[in-house]
Amino acid sequence: MSLLVTGTVAFDAIETPFGKTDKIIGGAATYISLAASYFTKDVSLIAVVGDDFPASYIELIKSKGISTEGLQIKEGEKSFFWSGRYFNDMNSRETLITELNVLADFDPIVPASLAQPEFVMLGNLSPQVQLTLLERLTNKPKLVVMDTMNFWMDIALEDLKKALKKVDVLTINDEEARQLSGEYSLLKASRVIREMGPQYLIIKKGEHGALLFHGDQVFSAPAMLLEDVFDPTGAGDTFAGGFIGWLALTNDISFENMKRAIIYGSAMASFCVEKFGTDNILEIPREELMERVNAFKKLSYVDIV
Amino acid sequence: MSLLVTGTVAFDAIETPFGKTDKIIGGAATYISLAASYFTKDVSLIAVVGDDFPASYIELIKSKGISTEGLQIKEGEKSFFWSGRYFNDMNSRETLITELNVLADFDPIVPASLAQPEFVMLGNLSPQVQLTLLERLTNKPKLVVMDTMNFWMDIALEDLKKALKKVDVLTINDEEARQLSGEYSLLKASRVIREMGPQYLIIKKGEHGALLFHGDQVFSAPAMLLEDVFDPTGAGDTFAGGFIGWLALTNDISFENMKRAIIYGSAMASFCVEKFGTDNILEIPREELMERVNAFKKLSYVDIV
Repeated sequence: MSLLVTGTVAFDAIETPFGKTDKIIGGAATYISLAASYFTKDVSLIAVVGDDFPASYIELIKSKGISTEGLQIKEGEKSFFWSGRYFNDMNSRETLITELNVLADFDPIVPASLAQPEFVMLGNLSPQVQLTLLERLTNKPKLVVMDTMNFWMDIALEDLKKALKKVDVLTINDEEARQLSGEYSLLKASRVIREMGPQYLIIKKGEHGALLFHGDQVFSAPAMLLEDVFDPTGAGDTFAGGFIGWLALTNDISFENMKRAIIYGSAMASFCVEKFGTDNILEIPREELMERVNAFKKLSYVDIV
Repeated sequence: MSLLVTGTVAFDAIETPFGKTDKIIGGAATYISLAASYFTKDVSLIAVVGDDFPASYIELIKSKGISTEGLQIKEGEKSFFWSGRYFNDMNSRETLITELNVLADFDPIVPASLAQPEFVMLGNLSPQVQLTLLERLTNKPKLVVMDTMNFWMDIALEDLKKALKKVDVLTINDEEARQLSGEYSLLKASRVIREMGPQYLIIKKGEHGALLFHGDQVFSAPAMLLEDVFDPTGAGDTFAGGFIGWLALTNDISFENMKRAIIYGSAMASFCVEKFGTDNILEIPREELMERVNAFKKLSYVDIV
């Protein structure tokens, strides 16, 4: 099934206790589309970069079969740049630099050839831009998944609430779920948030796994125990890409299949954090991915009653 | 199978965002033995109280079939008393009062009739007292489970390491595992800790569930999503009591059965936190316990590959 992905395509510079990088390829839409490309070959990007963005990076994206027809390249402008430093626990980080550059006035133009996607993944961006993209589609997609973050809850809550009305699945972390709902109990929070629009809610808990809520059903996915988390950058986006990639591949948006999609997303994310940036999600052999998925299944399996 | 439990039997006074209690029955050994009594009827306590400890509390314990032959009542002395306040997130608390009283010179006397238990649960106490109890047994138990906390890592690390050599299963929380091992990765931490003695390690993660490590095997148990966590006091002890109670009932200490024991312990703990103190673990109908166990199984079950 066709999958349309929007979000940032950008430069990241990352510091972790294990080392630091120069400007490397990053951005939510980059991680999402790379991860999704393992599952479905019909992936298209809607994003914007400046003319400083290396052709080799665009070639890398294309080499995974991802269409860059919707990737705008702004002459004389610079790409979005984020730089951050992770602390020892890898769960907290500080932003060192945010240069919006081309993102400041990003207009998500959707070429006619891409305007009828079956699956849509709205990576983290201003809710206004996410909504504009949805409004430009000429069909109603089978499934719209949106990722967002506390930043937009702080400065654009009304826009966010407007966008949420058009969304089927929302992915946020536990602190964000508490902020958005005003409830501490995640069970209560999940109900409040789903009353805002999305029928499905995924709460990402990092090293503690992920939760999926729908109706009265809940699924709790474990997190893989890793020797080291080398660089968490992009883990949430890689998770989202694996999640929607699996759904697009199987064309099945039942709760049971979303549970599988969460495991595939978690497996992809567990590879992502083992090296810097996108390094570890460019060439995952199929057997290794399936081994990881099996390890996830085994991790939480219990033969009881 | 016979189960010997040691730990505190005490007064607690608890404040949470939902309210506060006067002095109520508390203590690690109280929660452990109450929870274990749902599974095995051969439970005995080794503990100490003062003569201020109400006969009705002792009758309550006895009414669950728990032997109090090893419960010392010190004339003219006062029982251990702990008072604490939980913050909104229920994951952090401050201790308001700790009165050691009879606990200051607790000598864990083991009556001859209790000196050959098949299962032993060392609830949180000074490691020296935990070790002394083990040395007074006249057999080698089938399984020794020990709970401890960061307090003993701070002030009695050498004693703790001595005790760990005699222990089969250690239960601690994630922060304690990191402190004890000096490793942030829980996978690495689990190896370092298991080199100290225990072949099995359980890491309790509160609202994020629990992990069991043994050899190269890992099991990740989810936590039940609850409307509200009303009072977390005793949750870890109730978990431990359900865990060892199930093992004593089934007399099976395989890794697979320990996974089940973790689910039974988690189910018991999920009841515990729904009301103040021991209120919610005194009369759990068997059908409700089994419903909760089933809900745990369902929560993490995924039909994949």
